[in-house]
Parts: sequence; C-alpha cells; structure tokens
Amino acid sequence: MKTFSDNQLGRYPVYLRLFKELLEEGTLVVSSPYLAAKLGYSEELIRKDLQAVCRESGRPRKGRSVIDTIADLEQFLGYSKPETAILVGAGNLGGALLRFPGFAQHGLNIDAAFDASYALSGKQIAGKNVYSMAVLPGYIKERGIKIAVLTVPGDAAQEVADTLVKAGIEAIWNFAPLTLDVPSDVTVENIDLASSLAVLCHRMQEKRGKNHG
Amino acid sequence: MKTFSDNQLGRYPVYLRLFKELLEEGTLVVSSPYLAAKLGYSEELIRKDLQAVCRESGRPRKGRSVIDTIADLEQFLGYSKPETAILVGAGNLGGALLRFPGFAQHGLNIDAAFDASYALSGKQIAGKNVYSMAVLPGYIKERGIKIAVLTVPGDAAQEVADTLVKAGIEAIWNFAPLTLDVPSDVTVENIDLASSLAVLCHRMQEKRGKNHG
Repeated sequence: MKTFSDNQLGRYPVYLRLFKELLEEGTLVVSSPYLAAKLGYSEELIRKDLQAVCRESGRPRKGRSVIDTIADLEQFLGYSKPETAILVGAGNLGGALLRFPGFAQHGLNIDAAFDASYALSGKQIAGKNVYSMAVLPGYIKERGIKIAVLTVPGDAAQEVADTLVKAGIEAIWNFAPLTLDVPSDVTVENIDLASSLAVLCHRMQEKRGKNHG
Repeated sequence: MKTFSDNQLGRYPVYLRLFKELLEEGTLVVSSPYLAAKLGYSEELIRKDLQAVCRESGRPRKGRSVIDTIADLEQFLGYSKPETAILVGAGNLGGALLRFPGFAQHGLNIDAAFDASYALSGKQIAGKNVYSMAVLPGYIKERGIKIAVLTVPGDAAQEVADTLVKAGIEAIWNFAPLTLDVPSDVTVENIDLASSLAVLCHRMQEKRGKNHG
C-alpha cells in the first residue's frame, strides 16, 4: 500500500472541492498552472498528488478531465461508500456536528450519539438518537462500529477513549483538547481549535511587526 | 522577529495544556524525558520548542519549573491580553462556537456575531448580539476589530471575506470549506473538517490492511 503523508491526504478533499466548483461553473478540462494559481501549491506538487490517485494522468497540452478526476478522488477518499460512526459527547460542539449536513457527503454517516447527561439521553438531535453512556460498548460491538467522534470535555476524554477502544473502535476523531493515549493499531486524528487559534494570532502579529517596523 | 513553523506554533497550546494538567496534579518540576513520553515528541524537539519561548531553560538534573513555563507559554501565546473578534455566520457551527466557553481562556474574546438570516439578527446567542450583515463593515471599523471567525457556507465565504478585508480585518479563522483569496497582509488559518476526516479514514484503512494482509 502506498504511503501518504498527513499533509498530502489532507489536500485531496481540497482538490475535490475545487474540481466540483469547476464542474459547477461548466469547466470540463483544467490545466496544472491554473490549479497551482488557484490553490497556491506548486504545479509539481499538484501533478504528483493527482497522479498518485487518478487513473489517467493529465496530458501536457490538453489538461485534466474534471469529471474523471472527481470520480477518482471520490473513489480514493471512500466517499462512494460512507463509514458509519457514533459521536460521544452531545454538548455544544457535539450537537453542532450532529446537525452539520456536510459529513454524509464526506463519507461519514453519524448513526447515533452518546452522552453522560441524563437530560440528553433518550432525546434526539437532528433526528439522531442520544443514548446513555451505559449502552455505548454494547452498541459499538453489536453494530460493528469502527469510527467514533469524540466531543467530550478534556477531563473525560481519556476514560471514554479507553472504553471506545475496548469495545472495538479503530479510529477516533478527537475534538477534545487532550493528547489521547491509545494502542498503536488505533488511529487518532485531532481537531485542535486552540492550536489553530495560536497559529492565527501569531501570524497576524508577525505581519503587523513587519508592516510597522 | 523569530520565525516559527505552523507545526511548532500549534504545539505551544499542547504544551500549555499538559503543564496545566501537571500543576493541577501537584507536579511542580518536570523532566524532558517525562514530557517526551507523555506527548510522543522527541526530547530534543521539546527542548528546542520551550527554549524558544521560555526565559529559563530547564536544568539537566533539576528539570523544568511547571509554574514558570506556564507563565512563559501564556505570555508567548498572548493569553494574558485576549484579542477581540467577531463571528460571521451564526448557524449550527457558528452558534456552537459562540457557546463554546473555551475561547476566552485561549486569548480570543468573541464580541458579537453577524448573520445574513433575518430570523437570527436582533437575537442573542450565548449572551452575544447577532447583527445583520448590513452593519458588519461599520462595526469592524468603529471598534477596530482585527480578527474574524468565518463560519458561513462555502458559496458565501469569499464575498464575506472580501467585505471583512475591506473593513480592516487582519486575520480570518476560516471554517468555511473553501480556499480564501485574500491580500498577502491578511492572515488566514483554516479548520478543514473534511481534510481531517480524510486523513482519519485513510490511516484506519492502512492499519487494517497491515493487520489483515
């Protein structure tokens, strides 16, 4: 199996989005220089990225088929057969993710949610059942769920992650502000809002420093 | 001004979180090997990262002061004097971010929200006023706001970004699934849920491939 870096993998949804926008605008063929200008990546990087997952390489003079590339990217990203996931922690952020309509088209189908709060369990959010934490392991095992979205507070995250792994979860999409300790055969991908914010604020200060000094 | 990579900048909130956890547990001095084991970074990387922003370097035999390091990290990250920001797009994700209590302690104070929907403008979310888009430029200019959180749908994002930049915004925290086109003196930091999800699913498949084949 070919190995991709995180950065490279993260670029494929960006390509897919752009190609879909191009198709909507009626563009059927596109050149590498155009893609490079639009995305801010180098032409070489774009060619390498797309060659790794597309059946046909773009032809130097004719450019790349937008429709074929969309099909290849969707195939590679697994959007044609969505994975079923559960969400743990149906508070503010978790609730928002349950209501977010975009995941299904990105290959993720959130099936149900779990929450420690008695006020939430038994209710529905965006048409999805919220269950008590007591039934979490049984639900995962019975349905063979492999992906969990983790949106619990930081101080609960490790304990919940342990439960998830024990029940058979193979991948955790971690929104909790915490470095999870999991076995090496479990995949964790973090969305860390605090880190992203730190980068934003620092880059802004840097540019100010340049402009004013 | 020292230049930091995005990865390095993104690690400082992670360090801060761990040092705060250590302090809560009553740990006052910590060693690099301990930090390395806990975070999964190399000792050398941790030493370099912390040396770049801390007044005192850790002493080989005595370790690093947890309290001093927290103070240095908070100083570096600007958490001692929060920036004021506005949020544009008070739908599901925007609403969740407005309700999220964690931003203030990460140096961001969201002052008000703006939304194109008549149903939302004039209302409050989490005690914050939601205004109509018509007053957005005036509000930014009058209060000298420099940071905007962008949570509008993809097809509206570029137009809103243009308005923000014209009104004087210097940094955009972009949650819209779109590559924004902004002048070079404006900072953009993207939170791309689709890219993160693609990485998660692909890594899980890779591990499955290894274990079963």
